[in-house]
Amino acid sequence: SHENGRGDQALSQIDIYAINLAQHHSAFIHVSPLVLGSQGQDTEWVNVVISNPEPSSDDWVGVFSPAKFDSSSCAPTDDKEIAPFICSAPVKYMYAKSSPDYMKTGNAVLKFMLINQRADFSFALFTGGLSNPTLVSVSNHVSFINPKAPVYPRLALGKKWDEMTVTWTSGYNIGEAVPFVEWSRKGTRSRRSPAGTLTFTRNSMCGAPARTVGWRDPGFIHTASLKDLWPNLKYTYRMGHELMNGSIVWSKNFTFKSSPYPGQDSLQRVIIFGDMGKGERDGSNEYNDYQPGSLNTTDQLIKDLKNIDIVFHIGDITYANGYISQWDQFTAQVEPIASTVPYMVASGNHERDWPDSGSFYGGKDSGGECGVPAETMFDFPAENKAKFWYSADYGMFRFCVADTEHDWREGSEQYQFIERCLASVDRRAQPWLIFIAHRVLGYSTNDWYGQEGSFEEPMGRESLQKLWQKYKVDIAFYGHVHNYERTCPIYQNQCMDNEKSHYSGAFKGTIHVVVGGAGSHLSSFSSLKPKWSIFRDYDYGFVKLTAFDHSSLLFEYKKSSNGAVHDSFTIFREYRDVLACVRDSCEPTTLAS
Amino acid sequence: SHENGRGDQALSQIDIYAINLAQHHSAFIHVSPLVLGSQGQDTEWVNVVISNPEPSSDDWVGVFSPAKFDSSSCAPTDDKEIAPFICSAPVKYMYAKSSPDYMKTGNAVLKFMLINQRADFSFALFTGGLSNPTLVSVSNHVSFINPKAPVYPRLALGKKWDEMTVTWTSGYNIGEAVPFVEWSRKGTRSRRSPAGTLTFTRNSMCGAPARTVGWRDPGFIHTASLKDLWPNLKYTYRMGHELMNGSIVWSKNFTFKSSPYPGQDSLQRVIIFGDMGKGERDGSNEYNDYQPGSLNTTDQLIKDLKNIDIVFHIGDITYANGYISQWDQFTAQVEPIASTVPYMVASGNHERDWPDSGSFYGGKDSGGECGVPAETMFDFPAENKAKFWYSADYGMFRFCVADTEHDWREGSEQYQFIERCLASVDRRAQPWLIFIAHRVLGYSTNDWYGQEGSFEEPMGRESLQKLWQKYKVDIAFYGHVHNYERTCPIYQNQCMDNEKSHYSGAFKGTIHVVVGGAGSHLSSFSSLKPKWSIFRDYDYGFVKLTAFDHSSLLFEYKKSSNGAVHDSFTIFREYRDVLACVRDSCEPTTLAS
Repeated sequence: SHENGRGDQALSQIDIYAINLAQHHSAFIHVSPLVLGSQGQDTEWVNVVISNPEPSSDDWVGVFSPAKFDSSSCAPTDDKEIAPFICSAPVKYMYAKSSPDYMKTGNAVLKFMLINQRADFSFALFTGGLSNPTLVSVSNHVSFINPKAPVYPRLALGKKWDEMTVTWTSGYNIGEAVPFVEWSRKGTRSRRSPAGTLTFTRNSMCGAPARTVGWRDPGFIHTASLKDLWPNLKYTYRMGHELMNGSIVWSKNFTFKSSPYPGQDSLQRVIIFGDMGKGERDGSNEYNDYQPGSLNTTDQLIKDLKNIDIVFHIGDITYANGYISQWDQFTAQVEPIASTVPYMVASGNHERDWPDSGSFYGGKDSGGECGVPAETMFDFPAENKAKFWYSADYGMFRFCVADTEHDWREGSEQYQFIERCLASVDRRAQPWLIFIAHRVLGYSTNDWYGQEGSFEEPMGRESLQKLWQKYKVDIAFYGHVHNYERTCPIYQNQCMDNEKSHYSGAFKGTIHVVVGGAGSHLSSFSSLKPKWSIFRDYDYGFVKLTAFDHSSLLFEYKKSSNGAVHDSFTIFREYRDVLACVRDSCEPTTLAS
Repeated sequence: SHENGRGDQALSQIDIYAINLAQHHSAFIHVSPLVLGSQGQDTEWVNVVISNPEPSSDDWVGVFSPAKFDSSSCAPTDDKEIAPFICSAPVKYMYAKSSPDYMKTGNAVLKFMLINQRADFSFALFTGGLSNPTLVSVSNHVSFINPKAPVYPRLALGKKWDEMTVTWTSGYNIGEAVPFVEWSRKGTRSRRSPAGTLTFTRNSMCGAPARTVGWRDPGFIHTASLKDLWPNLKYTYRMGHELMNGSIVWSKNFTFKSSPYPGQDSLQRVIIFGDMGKGERDGSNEYNDYQPGSLNTTDQLIKDLKNIDIVFHIGDITYANGYISQWDQFTAQVEPIASTVPYMVASGNHERDWPDSGSFYGGKDSGGECGVPAETMFDFPAENKAKFWYSADYGMFRFCVADTEHDWREGSEQYQFIERCLASVDRRAQPWLIFIAHRVLGYSTNDWYGQEGSFEEPMGRESLQKLWQKYKVDIAFYGHVHNYERTCPIYQNQCMDNEKSHYSGAFKGTIHVVVGGAGSHLSSFSSLKPKWSIFRDYDYGFVKLTAFDHSSLLFEYKKSSNGAVHDSFTIFREYRDVLACVRDSCEPTTLAS
């Protein structure tokens, strides 16, 4: 989202440093049940009973995890910042008045949904609203039976077509237990693959709030690589941690379908969207229109999951903006999807941007994260995960995923990668060539791009259209702008084909699509609409690509509210249509015969 | 072959569209046996009994597969082509008069050899010759017991030295059965490796006849990669298809020897030739001198197979020229070789060339195939199989295989590959550096190159000799010209060494060899013979390289007719001889010490 967009990180509204104490208050807060996840589940609803003799409309309850949050448990902060009475933000919060009779009686029962995130929980009642909160009462502590349990697996394509990686979070350090994945194909012996373990510390963050009130220990992130997979078959897997005494802590069982062989002729369905962020199913946090569409999009994908093979979330993933706990919330929210199909991510401004941190754009959108959580919590087949660009194959598709938060102009390291990714795909086997980037490097009639008079990120298409055209990129997808827009097949700002829904014959130009409306508050369009913009929708949605075979592709834009198709087109293209010489895309020929 | 070379694709002589019907005719044609391959074999001879009351000298019998060939089974052809009475060419044909007493009695028994190619067969008797054929009678249908059986495995080197790929053809789609290879080393447990499945459709073809009368469903092409092979050991393998009910359809058993470790000092024998094409052992089709030498070459290689480690067929592989069935015939013909030793192919004009299809040369030599069958039916370790260039290691050899049908001039993507391939070989371990390309990029006194006054493909050596010299390429091999020729060690058209048969000491220049005489009708030499041409042979043959150790290499040119060595030379060269600084091939040095 843009700096002056509505809605900032909900937790950032709380002025932690201004928190003062009013312990003498005779309010009372109690949470039950005390032990969570007794049936092995990693999420659970709790009841929070409040009784407050002096209720007021800006009373709110914050959920703190770890439960003990007074300043004694604060990590040493930079000298120039006064030590706060409370050192870190709550995981989530809810206004007491959301319970109907609270204002009259001072009594309320609030329902919170908690997820297992490696620590116990306590609930604190504050008065004085978010800007000068006064702590009135703190609840008893509650905890999951095993806070360290392996949770929220997310799949990703490996570096080879027959490799799938499983990434998950746990509380077990490598000294304490050996992490691995046990997996097998129907009717075969199960195998165990080791997992590598990564983590990051407060010191890895580039600035506040990530280094300060937003900081929360991320636990341990494990990634195992499942290799020599047979194409297009169902596999089951579970994560395990072998403790020093030989016993094993197991996760639930999960299943996935292995990737098709590159060029294989089978039904392949791809979901692409950006800027989804996260929501809270218990209604907490969402008080400033931050990601109102997020849960709708997630639930539509869960509903249609058996018709989905792979998902691309092209940047602005969680909108944690330095409040590290939100990464757990996000991985929990997408677990039903990401544990079943590869969940491929790209880097956006909210993952990476921070002044003087090497990001191409110098804003503070990452809240001090400077890419560290995104590059650690998710796996993706980049050569260097801090240079967040990579190539991925899936059956008849080749995806070239760029990183708009690092230089992509001609002469840059990333430009070379993009050309190699586009040039090295065999369009006989993989006809469908897709370019992906978070910020709009191509075309968008979004309001602020109109103000800049560029209708794109400045220098975007000027640097890259030569490549899109030379290598005949079918469709380019962007996020960052929170709406939906589709262009004609275009080159140098000119429509190369006036057809609107059934494209066929020789490639003429790349179709550019903005699909950043998966959840974050919507962006309005510019008053001026250039001729190349042929479909726009100011709503939440996502795109589904379906490759039926080597010559026919279906594009559908679906609304998140009801999953209905709101825009669509088809491309029918034979191999000779990809080979044919068209404007600025001809192979050299010789006069000799 | 050159456009105006003698002999075109045999099946192209039949004017399919001119076929008309004379059903009232009282001729009769019957084939037996009805069921073929009952002992699991994939080829079988059949007897075709003909009785024709009005025999004439241009009566001929066409073998159609699938058996049902009337226009109802035609795929929709482009509107501009009239729907033919018969929509696809026969797989092969024979003149009735080849049976001695046919002309007198009108009765004949023709013997045809059929191969299992995924469909049943019918035999049709035509009168009126090939140019205006009249269908007189159609036989009963015959079929192999399992037309879908896995057949004709061909081995290829993988992308790593310890990887061998097995590629084969079957009638089983991925929805129907799971393809795999079961393999093992003597005395070890067998393993199963999955196979990726590719196919191509009429729509993947670039033009006629491949899109029209030449089209035949290629079935499914499976490729499995056998990894972590131990060097230089015997492996056995067989292909399997696991059906949905759990039963497995097996192929025969095959064996191969794994590649030596790069740099390993062992006896290594390499066969190199181009333009072999295919022949029919039952004498059908070969009526216009198309590939008279093909079967001889194949049989010589089969005879000497235990003394052969790897084969390079450097372009103009099948001469199918758009008649897709001929790819099955070719893979069946070379199966005894290709199932036992890696069969490495390169791209030629007859695989790739088609106007406005991105091919460097714009002719119609591929009959509309534009590279698709070649790139799908055979495996080779190219990064992008549509850009048919790759590097391959075999013990003490490094092969840099170029693709003359795409731009190779300085500044092209392929030029960069060639330089990297030549520059990245460690000549201590792999002293023998071989450059391979289909068209003659170096030197040839062939007739039409003489007419062009270039004695090469124009711009060939001008673009590449800097690299051949700088990286001390020992020998460069070419096909495309159907004869044999060897040059002196040469650079910039000048002989760098006047020795003719025993080369030793420092590298002076690359020896260029034309070896395109493996089967297709021969090409004549120019009347002018420049001084650098030191051996020529207007006959069918192939080359065998034998590396005894790191310093001695034997080159033999053998005639296909009898396998006798007709030309040979040896190279004795020590490591210092490769390192020594010679004309335009010196490593930079510094004055400092």
